[in-house]
Amino acid sequence: MTLSVGVIGLGVMGAEHLRLLREETAGVQVTAICDVDPDRAARLADDASFLADPMALIASDKVEAVVIASPDATHAGLALACLAAGKHALCEKPLATSAAEALKVVDAEVALGRRLLQIGYMRRFDPAYVEMKRMAEEGGIGSRVLLHNIHRNAAAPDWFTGPMAVTNSFVHEIDISRWLLGSDLVSAIVHSAPGGDPLLITMETDKGEIVSTEVFMNAHYGYHVHAQLVGRTGTVQMAQPSATLTNSGLHHGHLWPVNWVPRFRDAYRVQITAWVKSVATGSPAGASAWDGYVATAVAEQVVTALETGTKAKLFLGARPALYA
Amino acid sequence: MTLSVGVIGLGVMGAEHLRLLREETAGVQVTAICDVDPDRAARLADDASFLADPMALIASDKVEAVVIASPDATHAGLALACLAAGKHALCEKPLATSAAEALKVVDAEVALGRRLLQIGYMRRFDPAYVEMKRMAEEGGIGSRVLLHNIHRNAAAPDWFTGPMAVTNSFVHEIDISRWLLGSDLVSAIVHSAPGGDPLLITMETDKGEIVSTEVFMNAHYGYHVHAQLVGRTGTVQMAQPSATLTNSGLHHGHLWPVNWVPRFRDAYRVQITAWVKSVATGSPAGASAWDGYVATAVAEQVVTALETGTKAKLFLGARPALYA
Amino acid sequence: MTLSVGVIGLGVMGAEHLRLLREETAGVQVTAICDVDPDRAARLADDASFLADPMALIASDKVEAVVIASPDATHAGLALACLAAGKHALCEKPLATSAAEALKVVDAEVALGRRLLQIGYMRRFDPAYVEMKRMAEEGGIGSRVLLHNIHRNAAAPDWFTGPMAVTNSFVHEIDISRWLLGSDLVSAIVHSAPGGDPLLITMETDKGEIVSTEVFMNAHYGYHVHAQLVGRTGTVQMAQPSATLTNSGLHHGHLWPVNWVPRFRDAYRVQITAWVKSVATGSPAGASAWDGYVATAVAEQVVTALETGTKAKLFLGARPALYA
Amino acid sequence: MTLSVGVIGLGVMGAEHLRLLREETAGVQVTAICDVDPDRAARLADDASFLADPMALIASDKVEAVVIASPDATHAGLALACLAAGKHALCEKPLATSAAEALKVVDAEVALGRRLLQIGYMRRFDPAYVEMKRMAEEGGIGSRVLLHNIHRNAAAPDWFTGPMAVTNSFVHEIDISRWLLGSDLVSAIVHSAPGGDPLLITMETDKGEIVSTEVFMNAHYGYHVHAQLVGRTGTVQMAQPSATLTNSGLHHGHLWPVNWVPRFRDAYRVQITAWVKSVATGSPAGASAWDGYVATAVAEQVVTALETGTKAKLFLGARPALYA
Repeated sequence: MTLSVGVIGLGVMGAEHLRLLREETAGVQVTAICDVDPDRAARLADDASFLADPMALIASDKVEAVVIASPDATHAGLALACLAAGKHALCEKPLATSAAEALKVVDAEVALGRRLLQIGYMRRFDPAYVEMKRMAEEGGIGSRVLLHNIHRNAAAPDWFTGPMAVTNSFVHEIDISRWLLGSDLVSAIVHSAPGGDPLLITMETDKGEIVSTEVFMNAHYGYHVHAQLVGRTGTVQMAQPSATLTNSGLHHGHLWPVNWVPRFRDAYRVQITAWVKSVATGSPAGASAWDGYVATAVAEQVVTALETGTKAKLFLGARPALYA
Repeated sequence: MTLSVGVIGLGVMGAEHLRLLREETAGVQVTAICDVDPDRAARLADDASFLADPMALIASDKVEAVVIASPDATHAGLALACLAAGKHALCEKPLATSAAEALKVVDAEVALGRRLLQIGYMRRFDPAYVEMKRMAEEGGIGSRVLLHNIHRNAAAPDWFTGPMAVTNSFVHEIDISRWLLGSDLVSAIVHSAPGGDPLLITMETDKGEIVSTEVFMNAHYGYHVHAQLVGRTGTVQMAQPSATLTNSGLHHGHLWPVNWVPRFRDAYRVQITAWVKSVATGSPAGASAWDGYVATAVAEQVVTALETGTKAKLFLGARPALYA
Repeated sequence: MTLSVGVIGLGVMGAEHLRLLREETAGVQVTAICDVDPDRAARLADDASFLADPMALIASDKVEAVVIASPDATHAGLALACLAAGKHALCEKPLATSAAEALKVVDAEVALGRRLLQIGYMRRFDPAYVEMKRMAEEGGIGSRVLLHNIHRNAAAPDWFTGPMAVTNSFVHEIDISRWLLGSDLVSAIVHSAPGGDPLLITMETDKGEIVSTEVFMNAHYGYHVHAQLVGRTGTVQMAQPSATLTNSGLHHGHLWPVNWVPRFRDAYRVQITAWVKSVATGSPAGASAWDGYVATAVAEQVVTALETGTKAKLFLGARPALYA
Repeated sequence: MTLSVGVIGLGVMGAEHLRLLREETAGVQVTAICDVDPDRAARLADDASFLADPMALIASDKVEAVVIASPDATHAGLALACLAAGKHALCEKPLATSAAEALKVVDAEVALGRRLLQIGYMRRFDPAYVEMKRMAEEGGIGSRVLLHNIHRNAAAPDWFTGPMAVTNSFVHEIDISRWLLGSDLVSAIVHSAPGGDPLLITMETDKGEIVSTEVFMNAHYGYHVHAQLVGRTGTVQMAQPSATLTNSGLHHGHLWPVNWVPRFRDAYRVQITAWVKSVATGSPAGASAWDGYVATAVAEQVVTALETGTKAKLFLGARPALYA
């Protein structure tokens, strides 16, 4: 009844997954961990085995399922290894650093004939997004016509380049917009403010819905993710992400989270709980390898659209039957 | 000390202007009214003279300044008559039904050499927009980079056609965006949902700011105008337009106004107060004839962009020195 | 058609009344002013006559109606003089500095047999309170059972003493609670935090409704007046008093006004517009002399209750037929 | 490493505890269940043993710790049995149906000399209350002076009597107010609206803070719990308990939960996670048996105060050193 899990990568996200598995997830035990930094691993090991080689962790008899939270460039290779070993994996986003590489993972899973991979687009488990989707599907806003997204970071890291606003940040809106609308994206145009930040990206879906997204890497005032889904009879949007309101120094309101970790803490928890349950029941949850491929492929083409400044058609290829 | 005003047109807006002049505006008396419907005029006359011919009203010795609230197609002609008579006028938007016609009014005022016309883009007097502009100009949000506008009507009238969403509704965002940013608009692209409603219009300014506007003529749930101005260190947006919040039947929140009259009641009042004061002091207030021309000219070109589906450059000609 | 008004007292409130009469009120002209400071009066005179003696102003042929905004201790005497002269007056709150003195004014007006006095309890004209009362009376919240009031000042002036929190500030809640509920107050008990600030005052009405009021003279963070009216099927409360919301420095929200002048600017304007109209039509508006007496009398008895710490019955005497 | 838990009582709360233990709590397994209805127990048993006798469950070798969620009248007896067996228990509130009975449980735990009981005042784990307490303790609002509580149910059950508004509902505010303020309660007075609903209960603490609570059993519009903590430099209050906001049918806002189960779902989850961890670490969490006694004792005396209508002093006896 208890799933034995190995965790690869113990950076910010890996350490948070480890904590969630140990403190807030039912039916699971962490039996092995892997990290490039043996000291960090030793500090976090507790009763889990430390394995220096991620392939050894994937192969280990003590590991039934794997959490992949190592650097982005390693995701696709480790996901392929999990598929080869026939083990379930929760793989942090992005699935791969290029569409071509992501497609190889999809092909491998299709060849295997069953879904073992869940990609960590955790917003699908955020209570606000879940409520928005449920309300839309129950007909509470009429048929969906438009989605306004806002994605603001307080400050981009030094090493952030223009395209990373798309491939690293906007990729979340690609996934959540497809999920909220149940649609495929067919075109994109990018408007860019002076200095390349913020971007305003407008996409169209195969059903004609419009998706507008502001991506602002240096919004300065805080970490702020917002969405409003517009239907023909009403709208549904995120409420403010704060449990309290304060009055102080002439000011009424609430504080913004500093980054995505506090903002999406509950989404990460529900995601990993859903993943453990999905492994136990064999019923897939969350974003599939195909969804991971689409997010990366659309992001790649939006980067091109950013460079040309014109409206680009998006090409994705046919969705394999495994992901119907 | 008391300004004698004549009001032309006593429809919804004209009657509201008449009420404001009589009940909520200092330093003014209504001495003459004009309407195509003599019965309606008789009901509203009180101690004002009724004149069937608007040109007679403009020429009357009893009239020092004119409010033009007759049908759109008559605006330009009446504005020209006021200029010819050397009388101030507050002219309801739009200034004219075509850019070419609007330009004739601008040319006439430029030839006259002094500004007598104020165009009724009342949002410039709405407390929320005024506060947004003040905060931005005082540096509270850093340099401006992006403006999100939302313009939703509960339902378009039967006689509304696609282009009217642009020429009749979106024209307000053209004016208020220029005013909030202090910029000129240089490009536009229109995305259209199935059936042509809503539209999402993205414009760029001469300073590189991005202006995004949703125009939804049949949003069903109510009349909802919103704006968020985004700067490099913060943002400022409209609060909800309601003095109260209620709890009732599992619901917490507020009601939307049914249309622009209650939503912008205070803006209309402040606008006409400012107009009366500007006539007394000779210092222009509100939108000028040039602003009225620009709004109509941009709308005209956005209608073309809507038809082509591509990004269009906007052409306006040079701003005369009178409006510097 | 134009009412000639004299203004007595040009301090903070008097100067604001003067400005409103001149700039934002229809159908009125200020013909005379009076103040203890001739320099201040000279600066504000414009085309009004300056009279050093308030009794001369009241008696003047150029003055049809009077605004009394001089220090509190002079209100009752000037109100009596207006009654003696048969002139309408808008008298700032409080009507008098003691219940006994207030009752003399009431008696004089009753002897005269017609209502000439309006007391400046301006909250009755605040859009939020007006909407709350309207909604309650239209049945939107069921029968009224409880009213929560909050009255917070950023800081009390140096010269403020404990009882003034009641007689100067809480007196507003006495009036507005009676008005919102349409009830008379019959008991009061006061709880006091260490140092005597804040107070929590609980009153009962003749219909059994409960009125709870926090009065906090040194709330530090800003000027904050709030009310929630609770009915058997719903509630209605004030929305935040701000036209905009901002994001800045990790913070989302709005600023509080620093005191009552910006918070109730619109209430003061509507009040004086209603007063001018009520003089013209002869139909009383706002708080009557009786309401002014009740507010002062209840405040006086609440001060006693504060000293005893027990629940006190409130005694007011019978309401004269003139105020039925 | 995995705690074996037995659950007594599978009604609304017991079934929710069972679900949380199985689906959302780390480090625990449910090994035994007990309920008066064998069919209900059978439906929920899964791999847990069913025991008809709660005393047998408490005595079972398979049970290391117990959740007591049976009817209120059984709580004290079962808690005493857990103490006798030396087993930890999470006991639903109230600890007992009288102060005298609760004191027996306290005495037994004191005699035992170690704390085995946690009482299910789950609000102590609600993110909003936790944030309010943290902010106050970090000095964000200055020293605390006043607490406003609102506790509204949509409708009281048929079998609800006047005193139960106090002993069943208000008991939550007794506990959370003591916890938020870190103070003891020393007086109470109750105001009652016609028909005995709502009540307004005003209490004072040993530090002079004022606690005001509206308890409305039939508020009709929904389940609404609110609190605002007032300090000398600022305030902190609950935000609205909703992840989304909607526009629909002229309305903007959010829905209220129908009762406490959805409203406090996360509080229940965090409470039981904290309990399992506290059993493992031996470090007590949440409300103690003493807190449970105090809540019941204060409620009992508030019922008396409700009957007399006067301010009552509260008597609690000395806190044993075990709960220092």
